[in-house]
Amino acid sequence: MSEAADVRLDVSRGARTNVPEVIYGAGKTPEQIGRIARELYAANGFALATRVSAEAGEALAAALPSGRFHARSGILVCGSQPRSGQRVGVACAGTSDLPVAEEAARTLEAFGHDVREFYDVGVAGIHRTLAVRDDLDACRVLIVVAGMEGALPSVIAGLVRPPIVAVPTSVGYGASFNGLAALLAMLNSCAPGVSVVNIDNGFGAACVAHKYVSLNDAARAAGER
Amino acid sequence: MSEAADVRLDVSRGARTNVPEVIYGAGKTPEQIGRIARELYAANGFALATRVSAEAGEALAAALPSGRFHARSGILVCGSQPRSGQRVGVACAGTSDLPVAEEAARTLEAFGHDVREFYDVGVAGIHRTLAVRDDLDACRVLIVVAGMEGALPSVIAGLVRPPIVAVPTSVGYGASFNGLAALLAMLNSCAPGVSVVNIDNGFGAACVAHKYVSLNDAARAAGER
Amino acid sequence: MSEAADVRLDVSRGARTNVPEVIYGAGKTPEQIGRIARELYAANGFALATRVSAEAGEALAAALPSGRFHARSGILVCGSQPRSGQRVGVACAGTSDLPVAEEAARTLEAFGHDVREFYDVGVAGIHRTLAVRDDLDACRVLIVVAGMEGALPSVIAGLVRPPIVAVPTSVGYGASFNGLAALLAMLNSCAPGVSVVNIDNGFGAACVAHKYVSLNDAARAAGER
Amino acid sequence: MSEAADVRLDVSRGARTNVPEVIYGAGKTPEQIGRIARELYAANGFALATRVSAEAGEALAAALPSGRFHARSGILVCGSQPRSGQRVGVACAGTSDLPVAEEAARTLEAFGHDVREFYDVGVAGIHRTLAVRDDLDACRVLIVVAGMEGALPSVIAGLVRPPIVAVPTSVGYGASFNGLAALLAMLNSCAPGVSVVNIDNGFGAACVAHKYVSLNDAARAAGER
Amino acid sequence: MSEAADVRLDVSRGARTNVPEVIYGAGKTPEQIGRIARELYAANGFALATRVSAEAGEALAAALPSGRFHARSGILVCGSQPRSGQRVGVACAGTSDLPVAEEAARTLEAFGHDVREFYDVGVAGIHRTLAVRDDLDACRVLIVVAGMEGALPSVIAGLVRPPIVAVPTSVGYGASFNGLAALLAMLNSCAPGVSVVNIDNGFGAACVAHKYVSLNDAARAAGER
Amino acid sequence: MSEAADVRLDVSRGARTNVPEVIYGAGKTPEQIGRIARELYAANGFALATRVSAEAGEALAAALPSGRFHARSGILVCGSQPRSGQRVGVACAGTSDLPVAEEAARTLEAFGHDVREFYDVGVAGIHRTLAVRDDLDACRVLIVVAGMEGALPSVIAGLVRPPIVAVPTSVGYGASFNGLAALLAMLNSCAPGVSVVNIDNGFGAACVAHKYVSLNDAARAAGER
Amino acid sequence: MSEAADVRLDVSRGARTNVPEVIYGAGKTPEQIGRIARELYAANGFALATRVSAEAGEALAAALPSGRFHARSGILVCGSQPRSGQRVGVACAGTSDLPVAEEAARTLEAFGHDVREFYDVGVAGIHRTLAVRDDLDACRVLIVVAGMEGALPSVIAGLVRPPIVAVPTSVGYGASFNGLAALLAMLNSCAPGVSVVNIDNGFGAACVAHKYVSLNDAARAAGER
Amino acid sequence: MSEAADVRLDVSRGARTNVPEVIYGAGKTPEQIGRIARELYAANGFALATRVSAEAGEALAAALPSGRFHARSGILVCGSQPRSGQRVGVACAGTSDLPVAEEAARTLEAFGHDVREFYDVGVAGIHRTLAVRDDLDACRVLIVVAGMEGALPSVIAGLVRPPIVAVPTSVGYGASFNGLAALLAMLNSCAPGVSVVNIDNGFGAACVAHKYVSLNDAARAAGER
Repeated sequence: MSEAADVRLDVSRGARTNVPEVIYGAGKTPEQIGRIARELYAANGFALATRVSAEAGEALAAALPSGRFHARSGILVCGSQPRSGQRVGVACAGTSDLPVAEEAARTLEAFGHDVREFYDVGVAGIHRTLAVRDDLDACRVLIVVAGMEGALPSVIAGLVRPPIVAVPTSVGYGASFNGLAALLAMLNSCAPGVSVVNIDNGFGAACVAHKYVSLNDAARAAGER
Repeated sequence: MSEAADVRLDVSRGARTNVPEVIYGAGKTPEQIGRIARELYAANGFALATRVSAEAGEALAAALPSGRFHARSGILVCGSQPRSGQRVGVACAGTSDLPVAEEAARTLEAFGHDVREFYDVGVAGIHRTLAVRDDLDACRVLIVVAGMEGALPSVIAGLVRPPIVAVPTSVGYGASFNGLAALLAMLNSCAPGVSVVNIDNGFGAACVAHKYVSLNDAARAAGER
Repeated sequence: MSEAADVRLDVSRGARTNVPEVIYGAGKTPEQIGRIARELYAANGFALATRVSAEAGEALAAALPSGRFHARSGILVCGSQPRSGQRVGVACAGTSDLPVAEEAARTLEAFGHDVREFYDVGVAGIHRTLAVRDDLDACRVLIVVAGMEGALPSVIAGLVRPPIVAVPTSVGYGASFNGLAALLAMLNSCAPGVSVVNIDNGFGAACVAHKYVSLNDAARAAGER
Repeated sequence: MSEAADVRLDVSRGARTNVPEVIYGAGKTPEQIGRIARELYAANGFALATRVSAEAGEALAAALPSGRFHARSGILVCGSQPRSGQRVGVACAGTSDLPVAEEAARTLEAFGHDVREFYDVGVAGIHRTLAVRDDLDACRVLIVVAGMEGALPSVIAGLVRPPIVAVPTSVGYGASFNGLAALLAMLNSCAPGVSVVNIDNGFGAACVAHKYVSLNDAARAAGER
Repeated sequence: MSEAADVRLDVSRGARTNVPEVIYGAGKTPEQIGRIARELYAANGFALATRVSAEAGEALAAALPSGRFHARSGILVCGSQPRSGQRVGVACAGTSDLPVAEEAARTLEAFGHDVREFYDVGVAGIHRTLAVRDDLDACRVLIVVAGMEGALPSVIAGLVRPPIVAVPTSVGYGASFNGLAALLAMLNSCAPGVSVVNIDNGFGAACVAHKYVSLNDAARAAGER
Repeated sequence: MSEAADVRLDVSRGARTNVPEVIYGAGKTPEQIGRIARELYAANGFALATRVSAEAGEALAAALPSGRFHARSGILVCGSQPRSGQRVGVACAGTSDLPVAEEAARTLEAFGHDVREFYDVGVAGIHRTLAVRDDLDACRVLIVVAGMEGALPSVIAGLVRPPIVAVPTSVGYGASFNGLAALLAMLNSCAPGVSVVNIDNGFGAACVAHKYVSLNDAARAAGER
Repeated sequence: MSEAADVRLDVSRGARTNVPEVIYGAGKTPEQIGRIARELYAANGFALATRVSAEAGEALAAALPSGRFHARSGILVCGSQPRSGQRVGVACAGTSDLPVAEEAARTLEAFGHDVREFYDVGVAGIHRTLAVRDDLDACRVLIVVAGMEGALPSVIAGLVRPPIVAVPTSVGYGASFNGLAALLAMLNSCAPGVSVVNIDNGFGAACVAHKYVSLNDAARAAGER
Repeated sequence: MSEAADVRLDVSRGARTNVPEVIYGAGKTPEQIGRIARELYAANGFALATRVSAEAGEALAAALPSGRFHARSGILVCGSQPRSGQRVGVACAGTSDLPVAEEAARTLEAFGHDVREFYDVGVAGIHRTLAVRDDLDACRVLIVVAGMEGALPSVIAGLVRPPIVAVPTSVGYGASFNGLAALLAMLNSCAPGVSVVNIDNGFGAACVAHKYVSLNDAARAAGER
């Protein structure tokens, strides 16, 4: 997520890379976030900020045009994108991983996609994963979020057809080494079709999924050459 | 890549996960590889083995039905899959990363996709990357392979629209720590839309790309519900 | 596994700790292994050596009293222990982990226990694990061996009642870091009831399981105080 | 320890895995802990929460049915389990490791077992360990907790018959790297019969010990087949 | 940066090593910083302190002879050095890396050099780097500051002639490991002419650049021997 | 060092970056090295290859135009560059670090500079370093090579005026972790003016030094604007 | 430093190991420290506590018999030991390392030895070390404390005859990794006669030095056998 | 151990540092070792080389004046040093650690000291350590060598009065990480009086012990000032 927003907006980014410039809220003042959001909204009718604190988020959502704030994930959105009709699934095991999972889910919704959430499918009770297998299979891409031993992406990748973007989280203690254990597990998945983003990077996973499901139009032209 | 092939074939894997069972050739004898390949070919009219040595590969390609062997990547294929007409790009900087890049490229071809290779686009001479920018942009997915500092996926992700599957390689010495430097760089990419697979895992990247480009039919049914 | 065998045998070890002194074969000559095995056999009617090479193992098995050698695991046994009637399960995903799994299985058999082997139950095809769930549940202890992402112990621990001794293996490449990924995953298992031994230490896992199932007599006396 | 409690209780877990669902208190509000505890107590007549803060714990113990709180370990219990009559030992070297040791001890007591505590048996004064050797030997399982160099499990494993569940703690500074030194030492124990859980995971060690000592009934049925 | 300032000033350092003794402000009281600054200023007509807090810095700048304080970088300067006329560039990607970049820039200015700043040239939008290529090329040395994947030094080193002093920053999260990812990437740069200083060490990079551009006079004498 | 040489020569690199394309000999056949060397020599009257084996090097030196091979460093050179008259020092402690030190020295000579070698100046006998202090001081840049604890760059940086390019080597064992100890020491140098290249990267250090001493002409034009 | 003090005092430790039981103050309340100190003082006429906070230390020193507190090092002492007449040197580079150096110095004084302090001898100004060379040489043991690159023990070990106990400190930032860089450097010292204790462990170094200089009497008896 | 021997002998080292220059045999040809040994023997009547291969060692011992070679430790000695009458103990657990233990023992003997060896005292059978407690206590210094979990130095330090030089070895596998586990354990010893040298550095431990026991004369002069 470009830090350059504070300095000089990279206005061509959306057209160039299919992901619009967004605001990385951590370490920015509410004033900075608000100013950039207004600027982006003025240019594109849309702005999104991540990692916005609860206090700043509520106030900004009230002040910005068509603003809304998702407290658990820290996602702030103004305006909207056209609906894509594409279904993307977001899965995780429970409470602790929810902020990261919802960062992905809310970002994907803001980007116009249809999000299905599966939030109690941990490997310690595999029956819960099996129970939603068909629903997982009906998504075009799956984002699978897990901390601790990070086994969930491997298990799901062995059950269904969609590609999986795995997000390790820093949930855990001791030998989880702030998410390193989950990260390594996901990189070593024995089930093919899993790729990985940085620890706690729900936003990044959403961007990967977004690029996959929205690429069709861009690809069509090439396909027709 | 399932090891279970040696023990009991997971015959439903292709239907279940959209990636057929393949043979991980490292540590298997030519006889073992040949036997499993015949079994898979008999079942599906297709078999693929990775990390096959040059000696074993040439002999097996001659002996197996419609067998062919790609020496640089160690990929052995029998039979074929239907053509998808989907274009996938594979990019890397040069000589040392080629075995990994070609493991991805040959796997994708065997899976039926149209592969475009960009093999001299390192960041030390960025003009070469800029020169192929439109060709990169016309692919539905890009696999970007890099060792040493692993910067290429970030640079390309900032230039074009397709999602990027980044593959760190163990090319380098000293503080590359056998690919760790490239792996960490890719996980920390400042350009959104990059996800990462294990070090030297060209096959795994190909499976991720394959799942993305071949999902359309599966997704269509869900979209129509 | 005590190295002290070469120097001065710790003859009271079996009585003191419930695990007899065994021979760690790595780095010892066939002559050394044979000499110590004879000495232990003379004292206890039993000797066991681990990590014995195929060449040395076959010759030693032929030369030693009631000797037998298990080539895949490198376990050499002379004589026998009384049968315990206790059932211990050993599970792993397939070919590559077999040497470690069999080191555990052959050691447990030599120690007199009833071993059930489950060797194609990887997480990439969870139906195979579910199919043997009742058989896993009927064991008193389970040894679960896995390389790569090391997820199998977590999955099984969520399905059945026996305690699990998890053995990470060095199977994998790149970011498996010679078994570190599997080790960390197992230490962070989200399913309670899993404890872990060193990478590739099938023998050590067998000793833990042996102590659990054979402790009953020792415990009875204490229970009666 | 399942996080899923917050979302949807895994009610079959106790029957399925022999360890009931418990509440991981870290990061939960007193209200959340209280609500889940009541729900679990209503279902099973028993609830246990770990890592509960001193303030929350005292208040919750007063408010919950037959509630009690152990401040040093942060364990909160409502109701009780039937007594097993099984003896489990918990050993550590002293003050700093006590919170972890008591997390194990209080959990085992809540699960119905007879706990013997040995809290001044560090390797720097080995005579204190030798003095309680017979008492250690009379336990069915030993949980051995140690920080810094983590040598205590090895020393005890060389002296007595019960299996050992080793718990490294984050006690130490500098090159203890928050418990890594103790963890590695325990994984490399030269005395067989030691298995290891995550750093500071007293609860996890208690679950392993619980599974071992309570498995007899489950095992009996299998033994009789 | 010598800590010895607090104890006994190394008065010959500037003459001996071409870098005067400076004050490392972190962990020193405003009184200590002020006292040493006066002492150094009295001796050389110049003093510089790094990592001075905003509160201390403003007050000290007001109190010290010809003092000035740069809040973003924490650099405090009294007095001045003769102008060298040498041009040194400092480049980074944006907001988050600015404190480190400015630590380098303000130090170089205080040492008498002509600093050109390029603060929005991240690899995610390579066109911004290309746009300033000639200006970068016209510097005698370039300091390139980057966090996250640390790719910027490689990209610039492939475009221009000046040598590059690369400064990794601790900007990032998760697998950036507080700057380790950027550090390793820079050490493995595939473009020759890059050397690296410690994470966040903008001051150190400025000293390296200063030594290069001011060495001419010292070198001349040697050249004439 | 660009790998791209094998694929398509980056002919503008020398003009663009002030370091000509060179051949990284590791992993290339003598035929490949010979072919590229001839091509580069034909274009520029100069070619340099690093990490050439002794066998290949002697034969290639005999066969190539004005070829010469330096066995200890594995440097192969054809043709020559104009003499710069600039003095660069290369220092190390002794035998084991010599291959790396000479890789730097022979590269600098090939690039036309005047190299002074100081090869017995280890910190264990500081009088030897002090004895050559004036000679070190008369160089424009110093390359300081050290393995084990990597202290030499700090010691020299405290004694003399030239900037220092520090090269950690993989010389050592145990806790040197293949050069990591020396690398970290150099990055943490308490003496300002030290920057660092990759472990064993003598060639890279030479490129940095080369850029510094040869930049004057390029800088002059900018200075005159 | 034994934690057991809180639980049951190991009264025979001084006689048995030549280092009396001391109080590790970190994590203990002033009341706990005071109580144990009184108990130890009653038994031996001497008590020492380390890592005591400034507030607790002043109050305790006033309240305890012949108590004194050293604020910079956090050492609290009651009573005294007989003077040994043995000279031990403690060296470091400056301000930041002083708390650790003084922990060693104050402990040694409390144990009855003659301490010489050398606190401005960093490697960045080697002339200061050379200036005190004879004084360093006249000590029976040297404790050398250093953070950052940790080079000082190597430099001093190459200059003088006494053995060196090296103490890495956590002073530094970035790639010092909280003292890891200094620790590794000291373990890899190229000058023989250096051994190392844990990061920031000034007390531990003092114990090692104390054992060396006070062993003479114990050794004499053995020598006379 | 100085590498400088190959280049220019540091003839004053013995007088200056109390440890004579020795030959580090690894990576040197028999001719090089022989030449330097003769040179050192000519100067001092004594030469010692470490890490000499079995083949080279036997031949050199036969050819050099009063040469002898110790095959297990790889120590080659010519001539002798005066006897000191000082007793130094060397302890380890058994076979695998013997080469390192004997490197220490043979070096100490060559330096003139009285060495007592204790080679079967591992922590897995603590009675063997207790049995030699008085003999350990009668040494002036103890060198304690251990691989795997590295617990032996802590146990011995809690039993006896002499200071301990701990030597971790690379004996082990998996999570021993080539000696890292033992190294960390020793650095975190809970028993005071332990300092540590590099992994497998028996020679270095011998130098530390040598400096301690031979310092008396040097110290006496200082004591008399």
